[in-house]
Amino acid sequence: MKWVILGSGNVATQFGKALSAAGHTILQVYSRSKENSARLAKEVEAESTTEVEKINQEADFYFIAVSDNAIEDVVRILNENIQGTVVHSSGATSISVLQKFKKHGVMYPLQTLRKETKVDFSFLPISIEGGDPETETILLNIAEELTNEVSLYNSQQRLAMHVSAIFANNFTNHLLGIAYEILEGNEIPKETLRPLILETFQKALQHNPYEIQTGPAKRHDRNTQSKHLNFLKQKPEWQKIYKILSEEISTQGT
Amino acid sequence: MKWVILGSGNVATQFGKALSAAGHTILQVYSRSKENSARLAKEVEAESTTEVEKINQEADFYFIAVSDNAIEDVVRILNENIQGTVVHSSGATSISVLQKFKKHGVMYPLQTLRKETKVDFSFLPISIEGGDPETETILLNIAEELTNEVSLYNSQQRLAMHVSAIFANNFTNHLLGIAYEILEGNEIPKETLRPLILETFQKALQHNPYEIQTGPAKRHDRNTQSKHLNFLKQKPEWQKIYKILSEEISTQGT
Repeated sequence: MKWVILGSGNVATQFGKALSAAGHTILQVYSRSKENSARLAKEVEAESTTEVEKINQEADFYFIAVSDNAIEDVVRILNENIQGTVVHSSGATSISVLQKFKKHGVMYPLQTLRKETKVDFSFLPISIEGGDPETETILLNIAEELTNEVSLYNSQQRLAMHVSAIFANNFTNHLLGIAYEILEGNEIPKETLRPLILETFQKALQHNPYEIQTGPAKRHDRNTQSKHLNFLKQKPEWQKIYKILSEEISTQGT
Repeated sequence: MKWVILGSGNVATQFGKALSAAGHTILQVYSRSKENSARLAKEVEAESTTEVEKINQEADFYFIAVSDNAIEDVVRILNENIQGTVVHSSGATSISVLQKFKKHGVMYPLQTLRKETKVDFSFLPISIEGGDPETETILLNIAEELTNEVSLYNSQQRLAMHVSAIFANNFTNHLLGIAYEILEGNEIPKETLRPLILETFQKALQHNPYEIQTGPAKRHDRNTQSKHLNFLKQKPEWQKIYKILSEEISTQGT
């Protein structure tokens, strides 16, 4: 199949490379950034353009992988009579933004993707939604060429997956950053936390996290919590995070 | 060496078993709970008691592993002229609570310990502090029989480790619980998050989490954040967590 990739960021790069590796042809990369579109185009042996008028009209698929804010702009510049199937890759965006196109759908990867990092697509869950049953089947088949973890979900479920991923990745990642910063501020190597982090995530993959919770909030140990809040007195934002999450933990299951 | 374990919970159980496996003798388990002290005593082939007057006075070490709130009670009931070394295992408690005892120190495990789960002590970081250099050396040597990860830290550093562990374990664990709950509320199997969770903590062990952050908060994508907050409108506590952590992520490094 012949593809045009619209975008040149993290998702565009990883999907462009995965599609190319699976035998698809990337005809063209369109992006407002000349440098980025040229970089990705080179990696997937495509031509690149920054000009709307030069977007190739002959592709089988148009893969939109721009930031959520820019999806509507890309939808606007694409010809509504285009023959190919228009696909976006956003967790938080309904399929309905693509309704002006006869054939359209969504391929959403539930993973944190960065263009600099190699991604093992075989374990990458891809969530599919099609504007009609035929398109849905075609997109399912393509996704199955890329990964073993393909599912059909509607736009509301995809939004749920996206919110869930914010909690499971972005927020936990930030808390690990704070944990390291606390150690380093007290001359303790951050590697000291390694066994605890491994245990935390391994246990959370095997159990209900609420049921295996430990620590002062779970024990309703206000005295220890006060010591911790006092320790954090130079960091009011961290105190706020500490308070709200401790409160949530202590009321969980009660 | 001969030990009395004071406490019968998660830390008492795991240390009692590890000391016993390393060739130490557990003379006695003292706990206010008859059932729990009998259970642990059986596991480590010790006698058990719930009576302060019957605490064995002949041990080399008294290992206090009770909840932080109860440490002072245990210190009070122990004879200040006791010959053995009195050790507590609390992250958030200064060594100074033990100063009435001639020989005293701290052995703090940086790990989430539950009595039901088998723990690999060889990767368990133990932080040591001694009331005097000789006691410190003795405790270091004992800890090195249990694990390869022994360090010397003072009470302030130990408090920092404990706070850091709350962020890295208790709080991330709770966020993973929320992430699962969101999926299950939308008929998506929680296993769908598995590859993302694996990627999250593997990357956080290799990089500075702040530098590899992705997602709408990092991109300052207010539109997506609004969709997420609207999705969470039935859960005001989750909205609060979402807002404060997104705010923190978006200001990180700016």
